[in-house]
Amino acid sequence: MARFLIKKEKTIGQVPGEPVFIGEQKVSSTSIQMIDYDKHTLTDMKIEDIREAIKHKDTSTVTWININGLHDTELIKKIGEGFNLHALVLEDIVNTGQRPRLEDYDNCLYLVLRMMFYENKTGKVQSEQLTILVGETFLLTFQEKPGDVFNPVRDRIKNQKGRIRKVGSDYLAYAILDTIIDNYLVIIERIGDKIEDIEDLILENPDETILTKINSYKREINYLSKTIRPAKEFILQLCKLESEIIKEPTRTFFRDLLDLSSQAVDAIDTYRDMLSDYLSMYNSQVNNKLNEIMKVLTIFSAIFIPITFIAGVYGTNFDFIPELHFKYGYFVMWGAMIVLVLFMIRFFHHKKWF
Amino acid sequence: MARFLIKKEKTIGQVPGEPVFIGEQKVSSTSIQMIDYDKHTLTDMKIEDIREAIKHKDTSTVTWININGLHDTELIKKIGEGFNLHALVLEDIVNTGQRPRLEDYDNCLYLVLRMMFYENKTGKVQSEQLTILVGETFLLTFQEKPGDVFNPVRDRIKNQKGRIRKVGSDYLAYAILDTIIDNYLVIIERIGDKIEDIEDLILENPDETILTKINSYKREINYLSKTIRPAKEFILQLCKLESEIIKEPTRTFFRDLLDLSSQAVDAIDTYRDMLSDYLSMYNSQVNNKLNEIMKVLTIFSAIFIPITFIAGVYGTNFDFIPELHFKYGYFVMWGAMIVLVLFMIRFFHHKKWF
Amino acid sequence: MARFLIKKEKTIGQVPGEPVFIGEQKVSSTSIQMIDYDKHTLTDMKIEDIREAIKHKDTSTVTWININGLHDTELIKKIGEGFNLHALVLEDIVNTGQRPRLEDYDNCLYLVLRMMFYENKTGKVQSEQLTILVGETFLLTFQEKPGDVFNPVRDRIKNQKGRIRKVGSDYLAYAILDTIIDNYLVIIERIGDKIEDIEDLILENPDETILTKINSYKREINYLSKTIRPAKEFILQLCKLESEIIKEPTRTFFRDLLDLSSQAVDAIDTYRDMLSDYLSMYNSQVNNKLNEIMKVLTIFSAIFIPITFIAGVYGTNFDFIPELHFKYGYFVMWGAMIVLVLFMIRFFHHKKWF
Amino acid sequence: MARFLIKKEKTIGQVPGEPVFIGEQKVSSTSIQMIDYDKHTLTDMKIEDIREAIKHKDTSTVTWININGLHDTELIKKIGEGFNLHALVLEDIVNTGQRPRLEDYDNCLYLVLRMMFYENKTGKVQSEQLTILVGETFLLTFQEKPGDVFNPVRDRIKNQKGRIRKVGSDYLAYAILDTIIDNYLVIIERIGDKIEDIEDLILENPDETILTKINSYKREINYLSKTIRPAKEFILQLCKLESEIIKEPTRTFFRDLLDLSSQAVDAIDTYRDMLSDYLSMYNSQVNNKLNEIMKVLTIFSAIFIPITFIAGVYGTNFDFIPELHFKYGYFVMWGAMIVLVLFMIRFFHHKKWF
Amino acid sequence: MARFLIKKEKTIGQVPGEPVFIGEQKVSSTSIQMIDYDKHTLTDMKIEDIREAIKHKDTSTVTWININGLHDTELIKKIGEGFNLHALVLEDIVNTGQRPRLEDYDNCLYLVLRMMFYENKTGKVQSEQLTILVGETFLLTFQEKPGDVFNPVRDRIKNQKGRIRKVGSDYLAYAILDTIIDNYLVIIERIGDKIEDIEDLILENPDETILTKINSYKREINYLSKTIRPAKEFILQLCKLESEIIKEPTRTFFRDLLDLSSQAVDAIDTYRDMLSDYLSMYNSQVNNKLNEIMKVLTIFSAIFIPITFIAGVYGTNFDFIPELHFKYGYFVMWGAMIVLVLFMIRFFHHKKWF
Repeated sequence: MARFLIKKEKTIGQVPGEPVFIGEQKVSSTSIQMIDYDKHTLTDMKIEDIREAIKHKDTSTVTWININGLHDTELIKKIGEGFNLHALVLEDIVNTGQRPRLEDYDNCLYLVLRMMFYENKTGKVQSEQLTILVGETFLLTFQEKPGDVFNPVRDRIKNQKGRIRKVGSDYLAYAILDTIIDNYLVIIERIGDKIEDIEDLILENPDETILTKINSYKREINYLSKTIRPAKEFILQLCKLESEIIKEPTRTFFRDLLDLSSQAVDAIDTYRDMLSDYLSMYNSQVNNKLNEIMKVLTIFSAIFIPITFIAGVYGTNFDFIPELHFKYGYFVMWGAMIVLVLFMIRFFHHKKWF
Repeated sequence: MARFLIKKEKTIGQVPGEPVFIGEQKVSSTSIQMIDYDKHTLTDMKIEDIREAIKHKDTSTVTWININGLHDTELIKKIGEGFNLHALVLEDIVNTGQRPRLEDYDNCLYLVLRMMFYENKTGKVQSEQLTILVGETFLLTFQEKPGDVFNPVRDRIKNQKGRIRKVGSDYLAYAILDTIIDNYLVIIERIGDKIEDIEDLILENPDETILTKINSYKREINYLSKTIRPAKEFILQLCKLESEIIKEPTRTFFRDLLDLSSQAVDAIDTYRDMLSDYLSMYNSQVNNKLNEIMKVLTIFSAIFIPITFIAGVYGTNFDFIPELHFKYGYFVMWGAMIVLVLFMIRFFHHKKWF
Repeated sequence: MARFLIKKEKTIGQVPGEPVFIGEQKVSSTSIQMIDYDKHTLTDMKIEDIREAIKHKDTSTVTWININGLHDTELIKKIGEGFNLHALVLEDIVNTGQRPRLEDYDNCLYLVLRMMFYENKTGKVQSEQLTILVGETFLLTFQEKPGDVFNPVRDRIKNQKGRIRKVGSDYLAYAILDTIIDNYLVIIERIGDKIEDIEDLILENPDETILTKINSYKREINYLSKTIRPAKEFILQLCKLESEIIKEPTRTFFRDLLDLSSQAVDAIDTYRDMLSDYLSMYNSQVNNKLNEIMKVLTIFSAIFIPITFIAGVYGTNFDFIPELHFKYGYFVMWGAMIVLVLFMIRFFHHKKWF
Repeated sequence: MARFLIKKEKTIGQVPGEPVFIGEQKVSSTSIQMIDYDKHTLTDMKIEDIREAIKHKDTSTVTWININGLHDTELIKKIGEGFNLHALVLEDIVNTGQRPRLEDYDNCLYLVLRMMFYENKTGKVQSEQLTILVGETFLLTFQEKPGDVFNPVRDRIKNQKGRIRKVGSDYLAYAILDTIIDNYLVIIERIGDKIEDIEDLILENPDETILTKINSYKREINYLSKTIRPAKEFILQLCKLESEIIKEPTRTFFRDLLDLSSQAVDAIDTYRDMLSDYLSMYNSQVNNKLNEIMKVLTIFSAIFIPITFIAGVYGTNFDFIPELHFKYGYFVMWGAMIVLVLFMIRFFHHKKWF
Repeated sequence: MARFLIKKEKTIGQVPGEPVFIGEQKVSSTSIQMIDYDKHTLTDMKIEDIREAIKHKDTSTVTWININGLHDTELIKKIGEGFNLHALVLEDIVNTGQRPRLEDYDNCLYLVLRMMFYENKTGKVQSEQLTILVGETFLLTFQEKPGDVFNPVRDRIKNQKGRIRKVGSDYLAYAILDTIIDNYLVIIERIGDKIEDIEDLILENPDETILTKINSYKREINYLSKTIRPAKEFILQLCKLESEIIKEPTRTFFRDLLDLSSQAVDAIDTYRDMLSDYLSMYNSQVNNKLNEIMKVLTIFSAIFIPITFIAGVYGTNFDFIPELHFKYGYFVMWGAMIVLVLFMIRFFHHKKWF
């Protein structure tokens, strides 16, 4: 997963409101898709010239324009002029290190958040900044890479499923946010499955790799938390927002979304707590292991050290050691040693060391 | 206890507001129970066709309809039409991974929480999502599995105990919530008893099983916390809610409920703190044990190593070792060894090692 | 000290508002004491029939009725009728597991908290639930066991000390709460003295009993916190309460009480922090001790193992070992050993091990 | 530094509002100093009879009366009557265990806080409760011990420095509080210097005395926190207070004071965090030390145990041990031992043990 | 980085509002730069006499005066008179230990914060207090050292980039704050890079230097937190401030700034969490290492102690030890020893010690 805080250095001293692409260029060319619909008509086309899209801006149809490729700042500027956007919005669109948030401009709502999805093929999480601008009759989405999670929404528009074609751009915004948060939940669940596997590993054989695992999951969970928590916050704002763009009936849907994102945040907190529980469990297990090791060492030492001493005594070369000349001296020594060993074993057994 | 976060994947791209059963189907068929009562009349029957129940919707009697089996989405849809429910309510009823919460729709209050009870036979906690819809003259409860905790409420209705027959659906909602929270308290107490037993185990013989126990109780407590805390929150909301459905006299009862759920949350917090105290106590005990082991090892080593060395010296084969030829050399060696040992014992005693 | 969460099981399904005694019956019979006073008159008597007391309810004198023995639910019901109390109040009075709180009913304030006092004879803390009902001209106190902390208040009434006889039931409530909180402070101070003694124990000789002590004090402090913190909260509520029962001049006294209870809560927090500091201090000490033990072991081993090895070498029976036949070989060996030992001692000294 | 929670026991059952001196009597007699000033006149005198001071109460001059010695409850009562103070104020003045706070009585502001100063001679912190009563034309300060920190204020009054002579009692209160908080900052800085020295000690030689030091500084910091944090809170209250006593222009100065006390609180938090960082650093260092000790032990043991075993083998008295009769058997043995030792050294070096 | 809490001692008893330079004098002389501009005109000059600047105060042009060198309190006083500043502002400007904050005086906004920048040459962070006074037509910046981060702003003014020349002093304030916060982000990123490198170090070879590193980074992060967090707070205040100085269009830019500073605070929190994760990871690694060491010791001891004992037994000098006279006794002993060793190896392998 990507770093959250992006390189700011090159923007120092930059004129505020001037769009300067900050991030890694991921595609060579930009592409623009326009879906224009109302209850009866539907246009879905790739367009070359953004002016085509701007023409649809003030018609009563909902115009959804999706721009892939943020590095083309010229295009962004044209869009800014065409849709009459605030200079700071343009600057923020192309700066891919934005904190998820909502800004209420006069003619549109500016939403920025991270779109993430789990790529089944690679098993990796794809993450990218998505900017959504919601006007009364239009909705713009900006992203750098072509792949996104909106196909279910597009299908619903095309197939006239549900209410989406009957209602306005605010419901489209809801549908898009819903898909994004659904994907959050999938990602959380995937990482959650991996986290839950750790417990058995700790109890079986706590080794260093577990430490690395716990730490890497912790970082992933933190990344998710930093991504999803502010998203939840701005959905709460959306629920309360007094704006002409969000109609009353759609508000109920946003409240549902709020609950979904609360679930996501709860799950993240649960997994974070589990990870820190696992860490302390791991440490306890390591201590237990140390105790076990020390017990083995101590038992061996305590049993053999005394009898080795006895053997040592009878290995001395004194002229006169009466025991050495007893007939069964050697066997008596063995006997004494065995008694000593049994006594030690009893002692350790009494101490519940084994 | 069940996982809190449910599988969301299959709902991605689903039309919002379309009821799709998410969860594990627990029964093969649905069953509907209707209790219809006022001060004078009482009907209690199993019904087959939901339309029968819908007829009672607008009568002045309180109509309590309990639906077992959420997987029958057709039935849910019919209920939705009959009782004029919001599309999102229907979607949420059949999605068994809801976060406990309260939603105030125009014609009804939507409550979702987890119903839990301790099964005395198996010693297990049964947990299931319960949706409560409270209208002015009706109350709907939705659950997947047949067993529930409402028999005391049903008895009170049948036997005209207390005020329940004299008042409206809001009091019925209170009675149901009261029973649910009473059961929460029972469950907390049961797990609390088990948690309190841990302390003695730690002091007696701290072994690895305690770690596993602490962790599993911690998870149970966390599950309870995640279940009960939002329930407390929505009861607080209920106390403050300005809705025509909740009458003023019932509000006092909800405040009492709030206190009960505060007690539950307090108890959960207490047990959570106890568990973390026990964990650190366990770790301290493990360290103590390690100290004890090391003391034994050190005492043994420190006593025998020097005297073994002495024996070793007199086991050398030098041509000229005067001591070997002293008459009582051997006994002098023993004497010296004993003096050394006594000195060591004194030293360790002085250091308070035993 | 008693468990906070009481057995709820027997109340499941109970009709709300029906008084059912929950707790341990401590006395065989109930007793009722009535003190009825104004500036000029004073009646102090034990009464048998509660109806006698009810007669004084609406007179202009302040009527303080203290009931010992909550298990007599019939009596409680009669009081409920006589003083026109809400059904839930009756239920809560006899349920001895209430959370300290304040409830503002129309005709009276309902206060529940724990009365605790330090018994000098036994050195134990007595703790019991106390319910206070404050009406405009009456004040009821309910407790299970006969002993209480109110004698100073009774003396002040009898001896006309201070303003108590000149003012109303609100001031009486203040006087009672003041005495209760004074007793809290005494208890906190007693346990605080014991806690402060721990530090020296840890530094002198950290053994397992300290762990048990820290844990038991922690539990006591937690119990106090759970008792006193909500009491502080409801005193804050009292200060702000807009009720005809609390007169303006008495409000200043409640603010003073708030400060007193803040002191209590602060002290509890201080002691809790001290306990957790002591725990980590104890753990550090245990680790220090382990280090010391290991140093002794290592020094002994490292000094004797090499020289024992040398002795071992000259104990071999090779045909040709030149050193054995040197004239002073034996003494040279001793010399070498002593040099080695001195070197080791220097090494450990250099490492600051002793 | 003194204990915060004072002995409450003797006040149980005391009539509220009755001044009873609680604390340790520090002086044998009380002394009263009166400074009475306005823009043009100045009186500074020790007075014997408080009635002299009371005469100045309602004149337009600012009358600052400083009372040393709180045990003289008769005097306090007289002042209470003279200045028309609330009974609770009198009780609180002589109870030296007050929590810093502000109370707004009708005719005066009641402030209580701790006055502390660093005694350069002894290197000790002197701490004492100070009560300030601010009326429109008078200001009373109460303390037990004679020494205080107000000389700079007195000098400014005498020398007409700054605006102090031109403005009212509220500015005098500000000047006094400013001096007190300046002294807080000095004390924090002094203890801060000591705390910052700990780090080097830990890294050099972590022994038990550090643990004691960390703990004692922690306690001092906690004491300061408990003293200064509520002071900051009541200064915030002062900034917002709607009272005729505090004039608008003085409010700006109180805001400045608020910032100063925020700095103090920040510094306290910083040092508290540093102490807990140092504690965990110390524990880590102790563990490191243990590791080092164990390495030495293990290296010694692992090197000498195998070669001692070899010597042991050739010390056996079997009739037929061929190696013993090899010509250079003894030297071969030495060679084998040296090879073994070198191998072990390499092994430990490879493991990065030294 | 510098200490936050500065020496207060010399200011005790100082007349409030009297500017006394507190801090370290860094330059020998003061220098004043004045940039005076509007849409059409631009003056940029070093001035000697502050009166020159004061003349521009009330003209419609924006007058930015930057003063280097705070120790010249005479100059500060003159500025105070010229710009009609509150006495406390003057005192605070020259006291370089201020907490970042915003104060709204009648005729100007007073902002104080720390200006920090990363010096590429030395790799050090330069940090200095900056006071900004924003009036309707003027903006004053005060700093002790000459170097600052404002060159990009100056360039934009000179080159008429963006809107800066067309708008007022509030936008200039924004531009300056923007540059400062951009520099915060650079510094955070730099330290972040260093922090992220620690993880590999811990996993590779956890030694004491890591502890020192973690602690020093922690201190730096804490310093940044203490610097940036209150800056974020006052930017939030700026966004909400009802003042004639901040015009409505500029408010949007301040909201953008708020987001930037939130990013900074988030990043700081992330790094702080990472550091404490690393610390516990380090401790776990140290424990792991200890375990490894103890395993080596135990394996060596447990393998060699028993066979050394056997050798010892056959080194005794008893008259009659039958085994010694067996023909292959010696080889049988070796065989027994090898069997024992193999058995031990199996035992430890079974225990998964290697």
